[in-house]
Amino acid sequence: MNGGWERVIPAFRSVCGEDGVSLGAAVREQHGRDESVHRCRPPDVVVWPRSVEEVSALAKICHHHHLPIIPFGTGTGLEGGVGALKGGVCFSLRNMDRVLDLHQEDFDVSVEPGVTRKGLNSYLRDTGLWFPVDPGADASLCGMAATSASGTNAVRYGTMRENVLNLEVVLADGSIIHTAGRGRRKTSAGYNLTNLFVGSEGTLGVITKTTLRLYGVPEAMVSAVCTFPSVQAAVDSTVQVLQTGVPIARIEFLDDVMIDACNSFNSLSYPVAPTLFLEFHGTEKSLEEQVTVTEEITQANGGSDFSWARDAETRGRLWKARHDAWYAALALRPGCKAYSTDVCVPLSRLPQIIVETKEDLMLNGLTGPIAGHVGDGNFHCIMVMDPNDQDEVIRVHEFTERLARRALALDGTCTGEHGVGLGKRALLREEMGPLAIEVMQGLKATLDPKNLMNPGKVL
Amino acid sequence: MNGGWERVIPAFRSVCGEDGVSLGAAVREQHGRDESVHRCRPPDVVVWPRSVEEVSALAKICHHHHLPIIPFGTGTGLEGGVGALKGGVCFSLRNMDRVLDLHQEDFDVSVEPGVTRKGLNSYLRDTGLWFPVDPGADASLCGMAATSASGTNAVRYGTMRENVLNLEVVLADGSIIHTAGRGRRKTSAGYNLTNLFVGSEGTLGVITKTTLRLYGVPEAMVSAVCTFPSVQAAVDSTVQVLQTGVPIARIEFLDDVMIDACNSFNSLSYPVAPTLFLEFHGTEKSLEEQVTVTEEITQANGGSDFSWARDAETRGRLWKARHDAWYAALALRPGCKAYSTDVCVPLSRLPQIIVETKEDLMLNGLTGPIAGHVGDGNFHCIMVMDPNDQDEVIRVHEFTERLARRALALDGTCTGEHGVGLGKRALLREEMGPLAIEVMQGLKATLDPKNLMNPGKVL
Repeated sequence: MNGGWERVIPAFRSVCGEDGVSLGAAVREQHGRDESVHRCRPPDVVVWPRSVEEVSALAKICHHHHLPIIPFGTGTGLEGGVGALKGGVCFSLRNMDRVLDLHQEDFDVSVEPGVTRKGLNSYLRDTGLWFPVDPGADASLCGMAATSASGTNAVRYGTMRENVLNLEVVLADGSIIHTAGRGRRKTSAGYNLTNLFVGSEGTLGVITKTTLRLYGVPEAMVSAVCTFPSVQAAVDSTVQVLQTGVPIARIEFLDDVMIDACNSFNSLSYPVAPTLFLEFHGTEKSLEEQVTVTEEITQANGGSDFSWARDAETRGRLWKARHDAWYAALALRPGCKAYSTDVCVPLSRLPQIIVETKEDLMLNGLTGPIAGHVGDGNFHCIMVMDPNDQDEVIRVHEFTERLARRALALDGTCTGEHGVGLGKRALLREEMGPLAIEVMQGLKATLDPKNLMNPGKVL
Repeated sequence: MNGGWERVIPAFRSVCGEDGVSLGAAVREQHGRDESVHRCRPPDVVVWPRSVEEVSALAKICHHHHLPIIPFGTGTGLEGGVGALKGGVCFSLRNMDRVLDLHQEDFDVSVEPGVTRKGLNSYLRDTGLWFPVDPGADASLCGMAATSASGTNAVRYGTMRENVLNLEVVLADGSIIHTAGRGRRKTSAGYNLTNLFVGSEGTLGVITKTTLRLYGVPEAMVSAVCTFPSVQAAVDSTVQVLQTGVPIARIEFLDDVMIDACNSFNSLSYPVAPTLFLEFHGTEKSLEEQVTVTEEITQANGGSDFSWARDAETRGRLWKARHDAWYAALALRPGCKAYSTDVCVPLSRLPQIIVETKEDLMLNGLTGPIAGHVGDGNFHCIMVMDPNDQDEVIRVHEFTERLARRALALDGTCTGEHGVGLGKRALLREEMGPLAIEVMQGLKATLDPKNLMNPGKVL
């Protein structure tokens, strides 16, 4: 399919209307967002369907004409997942933005792909319910399902894998399925299609609706910051807090470099040392107990006194510092770009891998402050680099590969939450081995025999 | 493959040794366990491999000779999953019974298929850790993974779907894969193969090792029993307890008929009325709060005072009554057999479906006491029937189909935890619709093109 757009565009227009199809500048603008490391690879056409029926009709046209389909939510992914490597049609789903079927008593809700995490929580404000999975960016919830996102609250509430109850998916040939029938509860009926599509990164189908598990807003929340003499002391505290069964909601690690950057960026004055940001959710009474136990543990490990944030505003300021880590890192070297690595290892291996990684960064003269969801064993180096310095770009690339292999050697994974996308396909092969990769390729070939769904990603 | 066993048996013997292969009586004895409703369908041969390498070698022989493979753990499944519909080779995995790679700091352990739930928890006794998923029967943990089991603790700790971290699987052609590489943590690397095999009921491969998430043994536990004036009042209490965020560990519903049966069977004297059995896990302090909140809620709904069980012995006696429900039901009609139905609906639909189901039972003169994991919306009718009364058998069958369809109409599922097996294939088609079934069939055909893995089940 080259140069044949004049035959196809009218078919798209008949589905989406004149304004629902675009070529050229708008495309590049939309896709530029994911350009930090992965080069912008714009599609030939963007369509803006308004319903699952339109997505299905458009997919049928693409299927008939052998055109690649690239689903697009908010473009906040970090591994080049929305690049149109082989051109084709970007399905921008932002016009499907309804919150559907809120069942307060059953703690569930369904959302279309245009609904973001913050959008949903704002919709839920008066219900006493919330959706806690929080990857930082205000991502599309269907996109978060597609990439198996998680983030700071996963230690308490799980990732998208545990919180997606059902999906509506348009397959490559345009057929529409519901991965759990009409269900929105526990089930053991047949193969778990829901979790096959969660994390499939647009390569098996277009997610057009996600049913999510909701949680009661905790009666009380309190946040704290605590500084440690060493990485080991911070991680030991984390392990012990979890072992004691404290239902901690967030436990985030920032290394000395990251804290220094946050201090500068947000005019803060935390000691420049390994640091934990903590958050507790519960009843007033249970918070007291959670905090007492945690403080005993951190102090036994040489941690500082807690610096507290109790009211919403102070908590907001504290977490803003954590959520601004990306921009704080960028500000370390103005004019540079950043790439966030993403590995995950068993908790007991964290001190070793973090210490080795910091030595590696130092040895290779790289800027890579570390921030991580330490309760999950998941952490990131935010690699700040000059994209015009070819030597540095190569050194960063080599560093990230070493880091991933270090994680694999410690029974970890090359990606805890960012997904494989374009950037980690070779590492995925190392992680899974050739036979498991063959199984994945077989699943892909079954669901998308023409290789039209987001081609060139994951496998 | 008919009458050709004399050619194949020597090959099996060369892998398993003389004692590792059996024909005839032993086979029927082993498979008789699952005979309550589904007729015993013995395989032609049973093999007892001792390692994954032997499972792989045996699978290769079966693959070469086109012989069906039926994985067998403890035979405690309820939907005829181990019947050898097309004859073939039963892989009895009880000789693979090692607990491997316990990582206390990381809260994980790996087990072979011969390790049961109680066996693992007894192994863990001195570690302060436990595995909470509890389907009642002392099932093989790999078998529990295969059927996506759950049970009484799921409301707090999740089902096998949330607690299996990695699987070692032998595929139909004998190749060995690890569904999450070497990982045993959060990951978003590639398709979620782990949850494709969890719940696949032996139709996609033989699970030879399961890596499980463990939990700290709670500091304190307390159980209670509470009686209600109506089903609605019991379920309303459940919804409100969950809404309030009480991290209740078990909340089990028993209807009046079930309680009456338990009273007779265990010489107890609970009021014959809708009843909740509750269990709280936590610190001493948090238990107080959990119990106070829960008691306020149950009393506001007209519930009785709690009857308490604090020490391990009294708690054991209380839960024995719940776990003996099956035998208590059987004792209602000596000489009869039982079949446990299994549907699951959103919480808010529970009162309606339970009330309608009790009317249906009454109207059709059937004995079916109700017990359920009400926090999950999951419940069972234990259908006690005379297997020689053809009319009654047919009425039970028709009743269970009506019950499943009632669940589907209320956005539920035809099986919350027992799986599809042999008994619910037609209902699965209704639940998923033809397109999603086609997807499942495609996955099956990709992984098992010769249809050798537990043929005739699920799809």
